[in-house]
Amino acid sequence: MSKLLLDGKRVAEVIQNGLKDRISQLKSKNVTPCLATILVGDDPSSETYVKMKGNACERNGIKSLKIHLPTETTTEELLEVIQTLNHDDYVHGILLQHPVPAHIDERKAFDYISTKKDVDGVTSAGYGQTALGFGQYPSCTPAAIMKVLEFYNIAAEGKLAVVIGRSPILGKPVSALLLNENATVITCHSKTVNLPELVRQADIVVAAVGKPKFVQGTWIKEGAVVIDAGYNKGNIGDVDYEACLGQASAITPVPGGIGPVTISMLLKHTVDAAEAAVTE
Amino acid sequence: MSKLLLDGKRVAEVIQNGLKDRISQLKSKNVTPCLATILVGDDPSSETYVKMKGNACERNGIKSLKIHLPTETTTEELLEVIQTLNHDDYVHGILLQHPVPAHIDERKAFDYISTKKDVDGVTSAGYGQTALGFGQYPSCTPAAIMKVLEFYNIAAEGKLAVVIGRSPILGKPVSALLLNENATVITCHSKTVNLPELVRQADIVVAAVGKPKFVQGTWIKEGAVVIDAGYNKGNIGDVDYEACLGQASAITPVPGGIGPVTISMLLKHTVDAAEAAVTE
Repeated sequence: MSKLLLDGKRVAEVIQNGLKDRISQLKSKNVTPCLATILVGDDPSSETYVKMKGNACERNGIKSLKIHLPTETTTEELLEVIQTLNHDDYVHGILLQHPVPAHIDERKAFDYISTKKDVDGVTSAGYGQTALGFGQYPSCTPAAIMKVLEFYNIAAEGKLAVVIGRSPILGKPVSALLLNENATVITCHSKTVNLPELVRQADIVVAAVGKPKFVQGTWIKEGAVVIDAGYNKGNIGDVDYEACLGQASAITPVPGGIGPVTISMLLKHTVDAAEAAVTE
Repeated sequence: MSKLLLDGKRVAEVIQNGLKDRISQLKSKNVTPCLATILVGDDPSSETYVKMKGNACERNGIKSLKIHLPTETTTEELLEVIQTLNHDDYVHGILLQHPVPAHIDERKAFDYISTKKDVDGVTSAGYGQTALGFGQYPSCTPAAIMKVLEFYNIAAEGKLAVVIGRSPILGKPVSALLLNENATVITCHSKTVNLPELVRQADIVVAAVGKPKFVQGTWIKEGAVVIDAGYNKGNIGDVDYEACLGQASAITPVPGGIGPVTISMLLKHTVDAAEAAVTE
């Protein structure tokens, strides 16, 4: 059986190349796509993520507006910052880095972001639109997973897809997107009984659970497509890659799988939002 | 094995009895809960449904404001009516009867309803809130299904639930609600391969497909809970009741199952919305 190694870096490159002309077009109209990132507090991993996203913007000709707020920022203060960005015509996308300090109402803050600028796909309204089939900006990791499947011509229709995880920005929206592509979707989680037995039936397995090497080789049906959306400390995914490689017909590595495509989807959504703002 | 016949009329009665005091309280503050129903066109079944809902309101002390628009109403005209109701402090809930005539953008109309008055659970924003776990007014049939399970102490946690159907107001939201109650959820539909095989694994089966007697007795695992959310011409459900009765540990009939509870949830949501408006 030929084995397909799903190369996220290649998919990311193709997406980013596709943005070049669009960004030039926008700039010829004196519009520079702009992503505002909001970081609250001093969590070092969050700082790294935000910096990575900002750098990816700048490398691709997208303006990165970095807002760094102190840990003691209140929910009300954060909402004010978001509101200012909602009304700023130079800003096309807003990303609030998760997690915010515990005293802030994160859900309220997410839902304060205008759906038109919700390029990271965190609002509940945007989630509803995505799940009902007409969302503009699904969360970036689910969007990346669908893009990788599309790039490698892996059809979801009629397939049995098992999603492990049900977070608001990963497990739930990727379940919704797979369902909208006519997969039959099983959403699994920590309370699922007999998880291995369910995974063994899957044509497509999406690991989005946040536990290193959680998905075992013995769980994978021969010929299944294995998508690892996990990213744990030390660059380790949610899938035991070496163990699953033998069974899978196609598999994403970590790093170099879904990760780079996720950032590309964020850039793409920001350009989409800038174009939408121009034609409004 | 003792067989549980899930009696929707009884559940409905309990819900409606629970509303009496709350409605009296509201009236003592000079607030009468009010549901506005909008019917566009002359579809006889839709007329019947709207009348049924209006009568249920009146019987329970809830004001029913019936708005009947001609078939040739445009989307813009419908949006204006909805906007007026959104701003009318005497109106607590708005129900736009589905389906509207084909020339109207139904999704746009649904999404124009204020989430605070979306007691029928049709907006995409409300769906997103429900799916992410904090929705005030899930669609009434999914809410009714969860209420029947709760009433009969049937826990969803850890169970494998198979939902047949993925409509925006039934299959998708009931899948989301079951998932939030820690069931493992398989959402199935017309493109599902080997549906009977999946149903045979289910501890809870929800039929929401709109095809008379679609779910066969041979599909049901012994001891499964069978919920029939279908309602087809001639008072026929989506489940072959007689055939499934032998296998199931609990089952809802049609009529007298989920139907009456659905209307009760609409009344409850209207009272909820009136109370929320008072405390605002």
